[in-house]
Amino acid sequence: MFTREDNERLVRVSRGTPAGELFRRYWQPACLSTELPEPDCAPVRVRLLGEDLVAFRDSAGKIGLVAAFCQHRLAPLFFGRNEEHGLRCVYHGWKFDVRGTCVDLPTEPAGSPMQRDVRLKAYPTVEKAGIVWAYLGPEETMPEPPDYEWTRAPETHCYVSKTYEACNYMQALEGGLDTAHSSYLHNMKLGDTKELRQRDRSPRLEVARTNYGYYYVSTRDTGADGSYVRLYHFVLPFQQMRGGMRGIGQNEVPELNGHLWVPIDDEQTNVYNFGYSPDPEVPISGEQREAFEHSFGRGRNDHIPGTFKLKRNPSNDYLIDRRVQKTQTFSGIEGINTQDFAIQEGMGPIVDRSQEYLGSTDRAIVASRRILLEAMTAVERGEPAPGTDPATHRDIRPYDAIVPPGANWRQSFGHNLVCTW
Amino acid sequence: MFTREDNERLVRVSRGTPAGELFRRYWQPACLSTELPEPDCAPVRVRLLGEDLVAFRDSAGKIGLVAAFCQHRLAPLFFGRNEEHGLRCVYHGWKFDVRGTCVDLPTEPAGSPMQRDVRLKAYPTVEKAGIVWAYLGPEETMPEPPDYEWTRAPETHCYVSKTYEACNYMQALEGGLDTAHSSYLHNMKLGDTKELRQRDRSPRLEVARTNYGYYYVSTRDTGADGSYVRLYHFVLPFQQMRGGMRGIGQNEVPELNGHLWVPIDDEQTNVYNFGYSPDPEVPISGEQREAFEHSFGRGRNDHIPGTFKLKRNPSNDYLIDRRVQKTQTFSGIEGINTQDFAIQEGMGPIVDRSQEYLGSTDRAIVASRRILLEAMTAVERGEPAPGTDPATHRDIRPYDAIVPPGANWRQSFGHNLVCTW
Amino acid sequence: MFTREDNERLVRVSRGTPAGELFRRYWQPACLSTELPEPDCAPVRVRLLGEDLVAFRDSAGKIGLVAAFCQHRLAPLFFGRNEEHGLRCVYHGWKFDVRGTCVDLPTEPAGSPMQRDVRLKAYPTVEKAGIVWAYLGPEETMPEPPDYEWTRAPETHCYVSKTYEACNYMQALEGGLDTAHSSYLHNMKLGDTKELRQRDRSPRLEVARTNYGYYYVSTRDTGADGSYVRLYHFVLPFQQMRGGMRGIGQNEVPELNGHLWVPIDDEQTNVYNFGYSPDPEVPISGEQREAFEHSFGRGRNDHIPGTFKLKRNPSNDYLIDRRVQKTQTFSGIEGINTQDFAIQEGMGPIVDRSQEYLGSTDRAIVASRRILLEAMTAVERGEPAPGTDPATHRDIRPYDAIVPPGANWRQSFGHNLVCTW
Repeated sequence: MFTREDNERLVRVSRGTPAGELFRRYWQPACLSTELPEPDCAPVRVRLLGEDLVAFRDSAGKIGLVAAFCQHRLAPLFFGRNEEHGLRCVYHGWKFDVRGTCVDLPTEPAGSPMQRDVRLKAYPTVEKAGIVWAYLGPEETMPEPPDYEWTRAPETHCYVSKTYEACNYMQALEGGLDTAHSSYLHNMKLGDTKELRQRDRSPRLEVARTNYGYYYVSTRDTGADGSYVRLYHFVLPFQQMRGGMRGIGQNEVPELNGHLWVPIDDEQTNVYNFGYSPDPEVPISGEQREAFEHSFGRGRNDHIPGTFKLKRNPSNDYLIDRRVQKTQTFSGIEGINTQDFAIQEGMGPIVDRSQEYLGSTDRAIVASRRILLEAMTAVERGEPAPGTDPATHRDIRPYDAIVPPGANWRQSFGHNLVCTW
Repeated sequence: MFTREDNERLVRVSRGTPAGELFRRYWQPACLSTELPEPDCAPVRVRLLGEDLVAFRDSAGKIGLVAAFCQHRLAPLFFGRNEEHGLRCVYHGWKFDVRGTCVDLPTEPAGSPMQRDVRLKAYPTVEKAGIVWAYLGPEETMPEPPDYEWTRAPETHCYVSKTYEACNYMQALEGGLDTAHSSYLHNMKLGDTKELRQRDRSPRLEVARTNYGYYYVSTRDTGADGSYVRLYHFVLPFQQMRGGMRGIGQNEVPELNGHLWVPIDDEQTNVYNFGYSPDPEVPISGEQREAFEHSFGRGRNDHIPGTFKLKRNPSNDYLIDRRVQKTQTFSGIEGINTQDFAIQEGMGPIVDRSQEYLGSTDRAIVASRRILLEAMTAVERGEPAPGTDPATHRDIRPYDAIVPPGANWRQSFGHNLVCTW
Repeated sequence: MFTREDNERLVRVSRGTPAGELFRRYWQPACLSTELPEPDCAPVRVRLLGEDLVAFRDSAGKIGLVAAFCQHRLAPLFFGRNEEHGLRCVYHGWKFDVRGTCVDLPTEPAGSPMQRDVRLKAYPTVEKAGIVWAYLGPEETMPEPPDYEWTRAPETHCYVSKTYEACNYMQALEGGLDTAHSSYLHNMKLGDTKELRQRDRSPRLEVARTNYGYYYVSTRDTGADGSYVRLYHFVLPFQQMRGGMRGIGQNEVPELNGHLWVPIDDEQTNVYNFGYSPDPEVPISGEQREAFEHSFGRGRNDHIPGTFKLKRNPSNDYLIDRRVQKTQTFSGIEGINTQDFAIQEGMGPIVDRSQEYLGSTDRAIVASRRILLEAMTAVERGEPAPGTDPATHRDIRPYDAIVPPGANWRQSFGHNLVCTW
């Protein structure tokens, strides 16, 4: 039984909460690099772990991530003027650089000592893989920047996108760590008993804890060919990596995938999606990029223009088509990730896990909760947060493949488990 | 003086509140039969007494009314697949029948004992008069299904509809039990002193308590012809029945009417409207059905398509026409029931009755509050809720007519008080 | 340091709060006269200091400002019928005159003593300068009606308008009392170093307390010509008056201006704007009226039709144009007052002043807070509220002009400080 108290610990992310303090020990996505396309471009609003911030790119291309409100009279810096190596508040012209230093204080007499005292809250950032990463925690515990294989892959071999989701991050993370539901929610062809996940709808799970979180292996019998095995990783604090399916038995290009579910606040989440090619010879193709944008129900084509919100959303029941649900797909909803959103947002902003009834396929979900709660306790005790050192996650690689009868998945996956990048 | 404490008792309807527990002792409308038009049709969301539910019609045509969220991981069953005698959750394929029994648990090994333990909350339902009635209370106090004359009338002789109202049920119920306001709010022809309710705007009320609630008789002097007498019934917990007026002195077909104001939650109500013909020779005509849909401001023509919400609503001040209000009708608002909504919703979601100043025409309203509060107290004491046995309401008949000078209304109404159906 | 406790005192305006009780000692705008254009016109909703009211103009042209809900069963009087010297509730026909007296009680027998007891809450009003002023406080402390120079100016020489603002009144008042920001936020021509407020962006402030609040003088060096001096007044409880700038050095007609920021409730404000000509020979011209409506971002042309809400508002980021912000104006937002709204509403509904860092140009703001808090304390002690007697504000005149080097502003302004009207 998962208690209501543990549920509260798990879902609240503001400063001062157990999860909020834990998450502030890791680098995490604040926005896409493309949201700040050039030096001195327009500032963007960022809400992260319940904090209102503004991101801007200065004249030298450096990123600032600062408090949303000017230190002076708390005017909104979103309307600020991004000019000459700093963001100037339009109310009274106070100007701050990317580190939050006040570089001009025109309402005070020249040389006023006040300028030294005025500081805007600013967080360190780093750009990697088209994402602006931020660190919101104490200076003394700041780890090295994130260093996943996908963040090292060259631009030609990687794709990232972002989608807004109107529920707590944990509902989304649990959906991402749950392999069993893909046989149902994502069944795109009713009656197709040959599809790998339809051949066996009750996969066996093995979960193994690691220093970065855990990996788990799901195994489905596929008949005479052997087993379909998927290797997932749960990477602290809220990342999932998984094999891409697209290369399986279809002579297609290989692709590895994953998501980060970054809490905007307790009831909203930004989902960062990534896909990358592990093969230097095979960059991510135009068709793959097209598929990312158009086929999964989370790309640019699926967004209300000018936003990261889905056109298919709670206000229109995700445009579910009950006739299609009867005759073609299991859900009647278009787009794999939109299907996930329908379930996750449909649970309400924060689900009460004390009301659940879990089964054997929920092992990976149970493990993720336990690991997160233990990590919170560690930080509360003054111990380091697990999995912050890039050494723990530098060599992680997800994968999936058909494993011949009698073979061991690890041997069978072989060199495919070694990072290319 | 009505206290704030009594007001709270009267208006809160969730499980565990005095009114919530009382209302759970009666059968009440959950949705229209037409919302579930055929076997295996799309499920519909039902919110009733503050509980989120899903209704569906299975392959055999039986109705299920179950918890809105799957017992497993609380995924929304609204998106579920209604197939082969059960509703299957699209998340992991758990399947439930109309009684909430788990009939398939595909994520567990075949024969798992877990299937027996998993149960979805489900409420008994019965279909009558085009309405799906539900019982949300304890099994041991479940009464026989509702059995009003209008629920026994054949389809050809009865009409039902439903409208959404954005305020507490009691504001609506009180409007329905209040005869005095029809001389003002529903005055559709300014200066027409011949209209029955305009001839006497201060009706005398006699309220008589009964085992199902009360009946009351309102009497208006209409001059030499005698008195215009209306017989209303307040039927526990939130039903009104009244004579139809249309037959009065106009050689028209007779018609009896009423409403049930069913709490969605504390601040929202579904209004079920009914009309029926007591004369086997005279079915409800096409014109009458047209009038129901188009003339009263509560029918299909008045709804925002795809919803039960009025087009004329608070967001547009019910399209009040101040010129019409000056010259033609008292309210300037089109549609009798829309006029009621303007007043009832305009009071705010929950009115504070401790601020009122009641007069002699409010006797019926005062009585309804007292009866409801007493019934709550009875249930709190472990006594049976009054008026649950269909024997108490089987023979109720509303009526209205002109009563000649000197005559007694009961004698004058005569055989018209005896149920036909 | 401004404490959170003082902030709470400053911003809450409901009956019973310190600011709410203070504000109820003054006459204040309830609506524009043009909102009630003729006898027996449609009633209008008024929300003032957190109270829901209805204003109407009776058959004799007198204004009523009464409770929004009928004394009987609390039906909304907004839908009432304004007829024959009174507002009649459409629910049961109870009728009230502008003083709240019940003048007809048709649901009771003729001559019922109840009619005497029924009273609708009603507040005294007075019309001046196109504004309906109301007094919401105790009868015994009611002062003489407001008597500012601009309320005495003839219609030909005065202009008033109203705009809705979605934040606490104090954020708006502080913006109005702050001269420093006009060098930044309202810089309409980047690089124009000749504009008076651009020549010196760090004005010196002298604040002098008065019996009506304070006046303050801001001085900017403009080089050889001398100083640009502006005389502002803060008139209790929430009015500002200032010189018009339009007459400065441009051979244009003189104009004096100001605003009242009237709390709708804690999080919303109605801004009343006024401008008037002090010169009997020079009425407010058609061009000036045009400018009021079209150029400042607060006039009829800027409102969503049928409302007092700006088209440029938080939902569309005030249509900020980042290219214009880079090249033409400091804010990229059109309309001086819309620029103010972007900052003031952008702070959130209620700003937390304990987080500020104030400087030397904030002296006028600090003084306004202190004066308001002291006035609240006075009223709490049973002392009279300062500045309620029209004698204190009858002779106030704002002004601005270039003062020659070495000259004293008071001498230089000379007879321009004497009221014409």
